Amino acid sequence: MKLYYSPGACSLAPHLIGLELGLALELVFASPRSKKLKDGSDFLAINPKGQVPVLELDDGERITEVAVILQVLADLSPGASLLAPHGERARLRALEWLSFTATELHKSYGPLFKPGIDPATQAYARSLLAGKLAWVEGEIARRDAAGQPWLLPQGFSVADAYLYNVLSWNPMAGVDDQPYPALRAYVARVQARPAVGAARRAEGLKD
Amino acid sequence: MKLYYSPGACSLAPHLIGLELGLALELVFASPRSKKLKDGSDFLAINPKGQVPVLELDDGERITEVAVILQVLADLSPGASLLAPHGERARLRALEWLSFTATELHKSYGPLFKPGIDPATQAYARSLLAGKLAWVEGEIARRDAAGQPWLLPQGFSVADAYLYNVLSWNPMAGVDDQPYPALRAYVARVQARPAVGAARRAEGLKD
Ligand SMILES: N[C@@H](CCC(=O)N[C@@H](CS)C(=O)NCC(=O)O)C(=O)O
Ligand SMILES: N[C@@H](CCC(=O)N[C@@H](CS)C(=O)NCC(=O)O)C(=O)O
Repeated sequence: MKLYYSPGACSLAPHLIGLELGLALELVFASPRSKKLKDGSDFLAINPKGQVPVLELDDGERITEVAVILQVLADLSPGASLLAPHGERARLRALEWLSFTATELHKSYGPLFKPGIDPATQAYARSLLAGKLAWVEGEIARRDAAGQPWLLPQGFSVADAYLYNVLSWNPMAGVDDQPYPALRAYVARVQARPAVGAARRAEGLKD
Repeated sequence: MKLYYSPGACSLAPHLIGLELGLALELVFASPRSKKLKDGSDFLAINPKGQVPVLELDDGERITEVAVILQVLADLSPGASLLAPHGERARLRALEWLSFTATELHKSYGPLFKPGIDPATQAYARSLLAGKLAWVEGEIARRDAAGQPWLLPQGFSVADAYLYNVLSWNPMAGVDDQPYPALRAYVARVQARPAVGAARRAEGLKD
């Protein structure tokens, strides 16, 4: 299987889940800016939407969208319990977190990474994001108080991988995380997992 | 089952899917602005995220996030084929469309509905949306040319319900749909389905 990725982008979540599961994912660099692969070939021929991540299965079929790729990977190794089986309520809770992270968090970071974007638009994105992060801070703090380290009581899951992925953008996006002590500790907790450190190093990211 | 909704909001997709499936969904009005129900009680006690839709199952458990609610509803009536069974590739294709619609389309409409938002931020959202709509226009036009009326070759699905839902906002959001003739025809095609017309009338929307 191949994973088209860009260092530190939202392809980090499927990358680290691949390592958690011991899957042989071949990493292929794609630039979300220039829409080129390393060899100069056209990334839009791989994904016409022009976005990483893309998972290419061994039969050549390609899957897009972080939240979907994470489900596909986790379902390859049901014994690892990174996502509850279809039909269980715990799976729905994980899917809710994936959807929330994708829609309310991930997409709000977009404008903070656009070079030359106007200040009013940045400020809008920052205030939208601050409201959402404050809610997530409360959710994580409540779990901390109950001795639950991860989003779901069942343990570390694909939902944590994706939430961690977007929260890890805070320093680069200039998001002040002083108001979010529980989130800071949560990010450090995820980052301490060997698979996460290995994924970061493989992408050339700082520890 | 109860569906917390607001007229014309993104609760329309689960509402119309409920009617397609003949499910007895009790509709409960919730204001996404004031965060109150009709009787003045607190919507944040129902969904701390303050957003419609919310699906309340008969045992009282609540499910949030459009894309997840649509899966739950469709899986109640697998025979109706509004979503392929878990484990089939066709389901992944539907999930990709749900995720794309949620992240790249739905969330881009947000700023267009915010009263008093500054013009630069509106312009940013409009240009982001225009790029995405142009891509979807091409996808629908390609299907038209192949005689395929819906997103998936298997037939009308929850992915159509959600895509229709967001596209139906174009007039209200001031999105000029002249560049998107295939999308205009597609919206009309979805709206001609009896369940869709019935959902719109039940929400007090124009035909
Ligand atoms: N809806 C997509 C979003 C993916 C996405 O935003 N990818 C970013 C990197 S984190 C990207 O490739 N951006 C380039 C672009 O949008 O043109 C998903 O959930 O996978
Ligand atoms: N991520 C949520 C988004 C839901 C959403 O955007 N709902 C809107 C109506 S279409 C809403 O309730 N907005 C009020 C708010 O965000 O405070 C989902 O997919 O269900």
